[in-house]
Order: sequence, then C-alpha cells, then structure tokens
Amino acid sequence: MRDVFVIGVGMTQFGKFPERSLSDLGKEACWLAMKDAGVRPDRIQAAYCGNALGSYLQRENGIGQSVLWQVGIRGIPVMNIENACASGSSAFREAWMGVAAGLYDVAIAVGVEKTVMKKGALLDVGDAELEAKIGDVFPGLFAMRAQRHMYEYGTTLEQMAKVSVKNHHNGCLNPYAQYQKELTVEEVLHSPMIADPLTLLSCCPNSDGAAAAIVASREVVKMLSAKPVKVLASILGTGLYHNKKDMALFDLDFKVSKEAYEMAGVGPEDIDLTEVHDAFTIAEIMHYEGLGFCRVGEGGRLIDEGETEIKGRIPVNPSGGLLAKGHPVGASGIAQIAEIVWHLRGEAGARQVANARIGLSHMMGGGKEGDVGACTVHILERINEI
Amino acid sequence: MRDVFVIGVGMTQFGKFPERSLSDLGKEACWLAMKDAGVRPDRIQAAYCGNALGSYLQRENGIGQSVLWQVGIRGIPVMNIENACASGSSAFREAWMGVAAGLYDVAIAVGVEKTVMKKGALLDVGDAELEAKIGDVFPGLFAMRAQRHMYEYGTTLEQMAKVSVKNHHNGCLNPYAQYQKELTVEEVLHSPMIADPLTLLSCCPNSDGAAAAIVASREVVKMLSAKPVKVLASILGTGLYHNKKDMALFDLDFKVSKEAYEMAGVGPEDIDLTEVHDAFTIAEIMHYEGLGFCRVGEGGRLIDEGETEIKGRIPVNPSGGLLAKGHPVGASGIAQIAEIVWHLRGEAGARQVANARIGLSHMMGGGKEGDVGACTVHILERINEI
Repeated sequence: MRDVFVIGVGMTQFGKFPERSLSDLGKEACWLAMKDAGVRPDRIQAAYCGNALGSYLQRENGIGQSVLWQVGIRGIPVMNIENACASGSSAFREAWMGVAAGLYDVAIAVGVEKTVMKKGALLDVGDAELEAKIGDVFPGLFAMRAQRHMYEYGTTLEQMAKVSVKNHHNGCLNPYAQYQKELTVEEVLHSPMIADPLTLLSCCPNSDGAAAAIVASREVVKMLSAKPVKVLASILGTGLYHNKKDMALFDLDFKVSKEAYEMAGVGPEDIDLTEVHDAFTIAEIMHYEGLGFCRVGEGGRLIDEGETEIKGRIPVNPSGGLLAKGHPVGASGIAQIAEIVWHLRGEAGARQVANARIGLSHMMGGGKEGDVGACTVHILERINEI
Repeated sequence: MRDVFVIGVGMTQFGKFPERSLSDLGKEACWLAMKDAGVRPDRIQAAYCGNALGSYLQRENGIGQSVLWQVGIRGIPVMNIENACASGSSAFREAWMGVAAGLYDVAIAVGVEKTVMKKGALLDVGDAELEAKIGDVFPGLFAMRAQRHMYEYGTTLEQMAKVSVKNHHNGCLNPYAQYQKELTVEEVLHSPMIADPLTLLSCCPNSDGAAAAIVASREVVKMLSAKPVKVLASILGTGLYHNKKDMALFDLDFKVSKEAYEMAGVGPEDIDLTEVHDAFTIAEIMHYEGLGFCRVGEGGRLIDEGETEIKGRIPVNPSGGLLAKGHPVGASGIAQIAEIVWHLRGEAGARQVANARIGLSHMMGGGKEGDVGACTVHILERINEI
C-alpha cells in the first residue's frame, strides 16, 4: 500500500438552491478542487461520486459520469457510491484505495446532493408509510437516544442545546455554511419541538451542495506546489447503529475509530480537530464518547467546559457541522475532508484551529431501527516535507 | 497489483418475484456463492453491492449492508455501487481492486435489483416526463441505432430477430433464465412493435434477481478446493454511448475492449465465449463489432452464419443474455461473471461451451442521448495449477 495525499479540495456553499442541478453543483466543486490542486482535468485517472438519493429524488442515475464529463474529466473509470450519509466519505475511501493500490496516481472524489424538499414534504427514506406513522424516523430514534443519555448519565437539555449554539457560532465564521446566524441556548430550547427532547434547532437541515477532494501518490505530490496532507487512515465499518442493548452508545463508533487510530498510529489525544456527523445535537455528544475524546457519559461535560470549541482542547465541527453548515447527504463526508485540509494548511480563516497538525473526520450512514449502517473514519496529517 | 481469482459464484433465478425483497434475493445469491467457494462468512473482508434503482423504486438505501448482515457477513467495509446497467460489473471491479491492491484477501461482489413494475407503469429513468413524450427513451434510441445500422450496412430485420431467437434458445438450456421458451424469427418479427424496427421480443424484459461472486488472492486459493478462475483484465470506461457522428457504432466498446485485451495480453481471437449487454437485439450486433469479433458492419453476417451460437466460433450470451435470462439491472453484470466462470469450469450443463478457457463479459450502463455512460469489460481465464 502506497502513501496517499490530499492535493486539492473544493466545495460549493451549502444551502437551498432550487435553481441548480446536481451536475451544476458537482461541477463547481470539482473545478475548485482541481484549481486548488493545480492539476488539469486530463491528469485525473479515476473518479468516485458519492450521492445517496439522486435516483429517488431527481430520477438521475450515473450522476458522477455527468458531473465529470462537464468539467472535462473524460473516459476514465467513474464509480457512483452510495452509503447513505457516508456516501461522500465512502467515495473518498475508494479514491484513496485506488491510489494506495498503485492503480492510479491521481483520483478525485466528489459528493453531491439535493435534499431540499417542498415545505411539508417528508423525505421518506425506507418504508416510510408505516415508519412515519409510528415515529420510527431519524428524529424519533435520536430522541430516544437523547432520552436514554439523559437518564443514564444526567446529560441535560442545556448541554445538548449548547452543541447547536457552538456549531451555529462556528457556522458564522464559515462562508460555506447554510446558516450564518448566532443562536442562544434559549432559542434552541424554545424552537418548535420535533421529537422530545429534540427541537427544530437541535436537528440539521435538508440542504443542497457539493464537495470534492483530489488524492495523489507521492510522485505526483513532488511535482506540485500544493501543501500536501497525508491520509494516515481510512476505515469503513458496518454495523447496527441502533444499539438495543445500550441505546445511549454508538458501539460502531468505538470499533471503527479504534481501527483508524491503530492504522494511523495515533490516539484520540493526538487529534487537533475533528468533524463529526452531528445530524442531531445528541449525536455529537455520543460521538465525543465513541471517538474517545472523553469517557462514556462525559460528553455533556465536554461541551459544558468548552473543550470542543474552536479554541478548546479538541475542537469539534469548526465548520459548523451538519447542524449549521448543512447536510447535502452525499456531499457532507467530502466537505468534512475539505474542512480538515484547510485547517491543516492554516487556510481556514476566521475559524482556524491554531497549529492543527492532525485531523479526524467521522461519518455515520443509515442506522435506523433494524437498519445496518456504515461508519467511516479518516485521519489526515499535515506534512512539511514530501 | 496482485493476481486475483474468482473462487465462487451464485445467482437466483431471474424473473418476476413480487413476493421477494431485495434483501431476500441478495441473500440467496451470497449464500450460493459462499457455498460454491467453500468459504465461511467471517472470512470475507469487504463487500461491494451493485444496485441501480433501489433508492427510487423501493425507497431503500444501504442495500448491501442489509443483504450482507443477513448472511452473517458483518462489520466489514460494505460499499454500494451504482453505474446504471454496469452497477454489478462495477461492484465486481471494486472487489477485484481491493484484492489486487493487497487490502483484502477475500471480497464479495453482489448485485441485486427488482425492476418488475405494475403493468403499464413506465420505468421513468431520467427526465421522464419530457423524454417519454418525445420518444427519447431506451427503445427509441436503440431503434434509431438499428435503423442506421440497416441503412449503413444492410443489416436486416431477420438478422436482428435471429439474435433474439438464439438467446431464447440458450435461455431454454439455462435453469436461471426468466424465459425458457423457443422463439422463431416470425414470432420475433410479428410481436407487438415497440419502436420501429424493434418489436417486443427484440427487447429485454424487466426482471427481479440477484447474483454474487467472491474473489480472492493466490494465498487463499491455495487453501481451497474450488477450481480457480483468474481475472486477466478489469476495465471501466466512461463516454457518450450515443455517438452522434456515427449512430451505428459504439466507440466506447472499441476503446474499453482494446484496453482490456492489452491488460489481459490476449486478443478477440483468443476469447472462447462472451456475455454482452443485449438489452435490444441490435445492441448485441453492435457489440460484436465493438468487441472485435468481426469488422464494423459485419455483425449481421456473424449471426447469419451461426458464429455466435453455443457451438459457433465465438459463442455470445450462452446464458440467454439479457433478452432471455432477464435483466435485473444491478445483478446482470455479476450474473455474466457467474456464467463465464461456470463455462470455464465446465459446469454450464446443457449450454456448456466446449473447452472454454478464456471468457469475456461486457456491460454498458446508461447511454441515452446526452447521457454519459459507463462500460465495463472483464476477461477471465481458467487456471489448471495455482
């Protein structure tokens, strides 16, 4: 297995763009990533496109082929990847694998999605008719996890609200974020109830957007001026996110992050920043625990003590996360990689984590009751000499 | 890159199974492939699942995760792959890549689909409303190609009908085939007109079904009793299937098969049997030319002279092809691999191609007007000693 480096990243703003197509969004992200890397379209040898819902929502298949054709990346192998919310990060993993394998020297991963619906429409993923009636939808499931976390560990409504406040604060510093507006704990707590205890501002929005990342071998990096970031670990795991034995624990997080730390040769104490799948406030708290940033049950304390703020011990979601940056499903995993790359290069502007050397990105995909989910963890490191 | 071998294959019958779910079909194919290989579920280290339309037709995401969980393949990386009709063959390619890269020693590719619709329902892939009105749907496009092929090369209605007659004959010899009924040229020509000159029996059906293949490294093969089949080439190309300069020519077939022959170190004259994407009769004739089995324009002659029959010089679609075996989109590419493996092992029963040593499978995915398509070519070889 060869070393693999991220040489370029790019993304569109996340938001509501009814006038823009999947191809249009994907194209912008690819152009920005190529410009960032300083590589021409004809140097890219393989492409992976993460998208979860295009076949259902836009009746489009072969989205990667359309996107890449339009930016002049032609004739090469293009693979469309779907792993629910982990579609983008899974696409990144396959691009990494192609370069690590020595099959390609330069590969691109792009993620794109449009999930903004008409007001009142239900994004009915799964057997929606029955599930929606009995409340077995994502907000309901995360609400059960939140209730259990409160019961087991004394986690409070205020602690969960603080996750949203922190991430919306970070979103204000990120020009790519869908929401750039400060929130207070009171506003989060008093926004409309979705599934007790999760209020509207405790849930991530539906979003449109795209992100892209280009990976390359050492030989290619030597020829480029870009600041290289090395991929220390790429792990994709599978399991039941809905842990019936302990609903307040994502055991898949523990398993996958453990493998990633081993592969990277680092531990949670070495991570300078992380982007996690905060689709709901309680999820971020549970991921603190699953990724080893604190002990089980102490996630609430972590947010209380400010440790996951940009200036804290272990900044989490400096981008604003899914809660404020938005969540165009297939794009989110690659947007996380882009965010981490910017921090490691010192290019993250107002939200820069000081002296960031190692970053971790985490995505969970699927995970409804009875549903087998995916989990990805990537660890990246800033490299000074190639 | 390490050598990769197919150690086990399996498939469900293809047909109309309204009572069976995607998971149920996928599960059966995986069990059969594992049984064929003689490996336990816990030996499989990675999985790729080809499916094109589950998100749209069944509102299911993460199908691979569900299928594999149920057969006891748990915790490992699972990736869902979509490349239209080439979804299954693309999943096979990624499994091959993972083993070739040295990342895994045993990986499984499974393809599954349910496209059987209620009578009269339109499988509206793409911007269906406008496209259906103007006839810019697959039968219309292939009809234009057929008209052009007739005009340019004198290809006849009878020659095209003979493709369906041959493949339905082969289907009668294949217990997995959706249709097991002999047809005559007259029956094909006089079946209801779909898009002139393509009649109902010139088009493949909608189908439900699944197929699976397990690949492994040399070290694993040495421990197993299965007859190994070596993957000589795996190529995935991208391009415009709808060739506006010459509608009677699939230039992507030429390009991708050329790369595959180079990778395998063989030529079209070395191929003992092949499975191609015969979604319409004219497509099979055009693929004869694109894959180098005859010169451009001579596809009609090839079928006339019986060269592509099971006992001919270059047997094409001994399984019955998409026309008779059926076409559960995401499964078809892997079912082709299974068919070729059975022939190379001498296990293809009544439809066995005598002394088959090298087989080629070909899939096209997408390719409507303006649509960028995928094309895969795999070349497999029987190995006597490992």
